[in-house]
Amino acid sequence: MAVIQGVLKFETAGQGLIDITSEVRVWLAQSRLITGTLTLFCRHTSAGLLICENASPAVQRDILRWLGRLAPQEAQYEHDDEGPDDMPAHIRTMLTGSALTVPFAGNRMLLGTWQGVFRAEHRARSHRREIVLTAIGE
Amino acid sequence: MAVIQGVLKFETAGQGLIDITSEVRVWLAQSRLITGTLTLFCRHTSAGLLICENASPAVQRDILRWLGRLAPQEAQYEHDDEGPDDMPAHIRTMLTGSALTVPFAGNRMLLGTWQGVFRAEHRARSHRREIVLTAIGE
Amino acid sequence: MAVIQGVLKFETAGQGLIDITSEVRVWLAQSRLITGTLTLFCRHTSAGLLICENASPAVQRDILRWLGRLAPQEAQYEHDDEGPDDMPAHIRTMLTGSALTVPFAGNRMLLGTWQGVFRAEHRARSHRREIVLTAIGE
Repeated sequence: MAVIQGVLKFETAGQGLIDITSEVRVWLAQSRLITGTLTLFCRHTSAGLLICENASPAVQRDILRWLGRLAPQEAQYEHDDEGPDDMPAHIRTMLTGSALTVPFAGNRMLLGTWQGVFRAEHRARSHRREIVLTAIGE
Repeated sequence: MAVIQGVLKFETAGQGLIDITSEVRVWLAQSRLITGTLTLFCRHTSAGLLICENASPAVQRDILRWLGRLAPQEAQYEHDDEGPDDMPAHIRTMLTGSALTVPFAGNRMLLGTWQGVFRAEHRARSHRREIVLTAIGE
Repeated sequence: MAVIQGVLKFETAGQGLIDITSEVRVWLAQSRLITGTLTLFCRHTSAGLLICENASPAVQRDILRWLGRLAPQEAQYEHDDEGPDDMPAHIRTMLTGSALTVPFAGNRMLLGTWQGVFRAEHRARSHRREIVLTAIGE
């Protein structure tokens, strides 16, 4: 049994759902652990992580539009010091979640056929984002 | 310390919240691990997992109705190739989540009195679903 | 590798988001584990856990107001035996989540600068709440 930990860093370019499955797969391969669980943790309160359908970009666009209606930028928020996209970003991050846990075996994530690992960026302007990866297993 | 991994398989019969606590309890008992964390991971993008009140079926019906209002089948979605219940299913899966992590001790999940482990099926027609269980502990 | 498990107990005083980062930090320090993952699990179906912005109380108030609009107390629910705040509490718990997983290194949680660990209490009257902490690592 061992713990392997690392960080993926991203420079963002506006709101969106971005597939990071291949970056995570490469990191897990280098960890050399065979069986266990991988935890991804996004160190921010206006960007998150989610498992999403990876085949049709229309699914990702529908999710973004739906989040946009559910936590709209135009609503009245008390907290608006950092611009109109900040408070909706906090709410959308709560909905998508800050962390993911994915099991792995044979040194590969046990994702289903249509599942991808996505980061969800909810701020309009560019940010540097860090995602901590922790694999625990054999 | 050890990792034990397995899969529960289900044939679905329409949308619903289904209590799988006893199946998970049996699996954990067979793992023979005493103390640690159990991760459940649903390998699909239109079905999820959640902790839900286990005493009153009315709670489960209220949750399903509320999800039905929040991500209605009748809304306009760009992605509708697989039928009108597909895109709402992706959104409802994001809300209920794809994974659960439950601590255990004495070879039993540390669920509260009113907590059950439920799978949330969001598609109308029958599907085969796989949930990966990974227990890490002593 | 080792598993360390414990429980934090809270007496609640109405609905709210309450920062418990320092209680969790103290518990993790006493575990003496250096690197791994910490899982927090709330043993209730009307109270949850979330990562939230820790700098501005206005963010927490905006989140509570938004949850109040999304799952309002005034809506028609089938389940209302335990008072009008009970069923909305179950729905809000689903949205905030029952569990959190946070990586740690150097015996400290790898939270981002603006991230705090909050418990989300959704019931009006006082309750005793238990949060199970499980650290797995080296």
